[in-house]
Amino acid sequence: MPSTASTQLIHSAQEARAAVEAAKQSGDVIGFVPTMGALHEGHLSLVEASLDVCDRTVVSIFVNPTQFGPNEDLDRYPRDLEQDLQRLEKLGCWMVFAPSTEEMYPPGSETLIDVGSVAGTMEGAARPTHFPGVATVVLKLFQIVPADRAFFGQKDYQQTLVVKQLVRDLSVPTEVVVCPTVREADGVAMSSRNAYLSTDERCQALSLWKSLQLAKQLVAEGVTDVTELNRRVQQHFAAFPGVEVDYVAFVEAGTVQPVTTIDRPTVMAVAARVGKTRLIDNQLLNGA
Amino acid sequence: MPSTASTQLIHSAQEARAAVEAAKQSGDVIGFVPTMGALHEGHLSLVEASLDVCDRTVVSIFVNPTQFGPNEDLDRYPRDLEQDLQRLEKLGCWMVFAPSTEEMYPPGSETLIDVGSVAGTMEGAARPTHFPGVATVVLKLFQIVPADRAFFGQKDYQQTLVVKQLVRDLSVPTEVVVCPTVREADGVAMSSRNAYLSTDERCQALSLWKSLQLAKQLVAEGVTDVTELNRRVQQHFAAFPGVEVDYVAFVEAGTVQPVTTIDRPTVMAVAARVGKTRLIDNQLLNGA
Repeated sequence: MPSTASTQLIHSAQEARAAVEAAKQSGDVIGFVPTMGALHEGHLSLVEASLDVCDRTVVSIFVNPTQFGPNEDLDRYPRDLEQDLQRLEKLGCWMVFAPSTEEMYPPGSETLIDVGSVAGTMEGAARPTHFPGVATVVLKLFQIVPADRAFFGQKDYQQTLVVKQLVRDLSVPTEVVVCPTVREADGVAMSSRNAYLSTDERCQALSLWKSLQLAKQLVAEGVTDVTELNRRVQQHFAAFPGVEVDYVAFVEAGTVQPVTTIDRPTVMAVAARVGKTRLIDNQLLNGA
Repeated sequence: MPSTASTQLIHSAQEARAAVEAAKQSGDVIGFVPTMGALHEGHLSLVEASLDVCDRTVVSIFVNPTQFGPNEDLDRYPRDLEQDLQRLEKLGCWMVFAPSTEEMYPPGSETLIDVGSVAGTMEGAARPTHFPGVATVVLKLFQIVPADRAFFGQKDYQQTLVVKQLVRDLSVPTEVVVCPTVREADGVAMSSRNAYLSTDERCQALSLWKSLQLAKQLVAEGVTDVTELNRRVQQHFAAFPGVEVDYVAFVEAGTVQPVTTIDRPTVMAVAARVGKTRLIDNQLLNGA
């Protein structure tokens, strides 16, 4: 139910926490959607999932510098707080927490969280400082916004595993809820980084989704050998000269453990560079 | 005021958290004293400090394996839950949280917290896995026991800095309170590890406290050159053949930054092996 009250915009961690604590004290269930802003339908679906099951929904908007590598797109990452706020207000979001970098990382901040092996492969191999940055900022956000539930998108498959590992290992009292990937009409996964793509690149970007569809189709037809699946997927990508595949991984669902045969629920995850833009996508190939 | 109700002993993290949450919901201020058990007067002074300013006091007793190095004293570390409970009950402690290792570290636990440079010198140099173990278990305990205030002893000077760094960097909503070191009649700092000492070693152990007293005396007499102070301290230790000094550090109070001149509040910290037992102590040499 959209709230009639307007969304409050809070920049201070202390104020955000006090407001959340007061709401919890009054018995409200708090939902939390951490984002880097530049909100698209994928983010908004997380907000809607939270609104459905929580009394009050908090969205954080913070482009976290520590999860970007030195040569990544921190500076050009899209930012549009005004439009984000309008969208969240329309949905009935209770609070937007939009701290400055100084608020999150005052001088002298040094703590980093390493969640171990789940962060070591795939995205973690390609972007070694990424998941320590993610884990640390998520843990910190969970202290500032001590929500009952937090909502993350399946699109960032490995990130959902990292956050679950973090929450379990550190006994954080926030339930992690993973919501389905939201896609454009043609199947491309919603991502703030899609904004970087030229028209031609946008066409090439479809190759990621198509590779997932191809593999799913092959598995449905009875192909169980991952070497064969991988060969067919690479063949598929060869038809997209503007796409440089970073990795194609076949892992046991809910883990980053590679499988050699599709004999259990398996996620295929793919990362590729389309022009200068690095995109990721993933899909369960079989099972429920 | 000692409680008339008996202390509750809880082994389950979920139960501990639920009880603390319920007490907070009713408006009580929660104090927390994390310990490894084998409680001595030093620990009990922390409990008393908590009882003084909090409505309910939780003590955790957990010999955390991850803060011991491979060749350290995890196996022989003293344990006496029965006696610990009796002492805490007598004081009026509300809850003892005494989890098993499996409760704290179920299979697959991998997360580790690195608080950065404050953990890199002194104890961190001598025991490289120690502070990541401490930081991780303290953060986890703070999630299970979301206290308003947590009490730590000044004896573990660097540990208090590590915990403060952790709490600040991750916005943990628990206030860290540091209480004075409690000493035996002759000045030896209370430590569970003192139980390891033979009668002769106990005499040699006094050298740590005496070295701190010597340095404080020299500073009072006007010696400000740290090289000179260090020379005199090493000379002092030379008279204790059973004592192997690990380090003597002179650092700016509240930091691990070495000083070369005593021109600001300075802590002297010392670590030494007496027989097989590694002991630490520290003292402010000047200032308030």
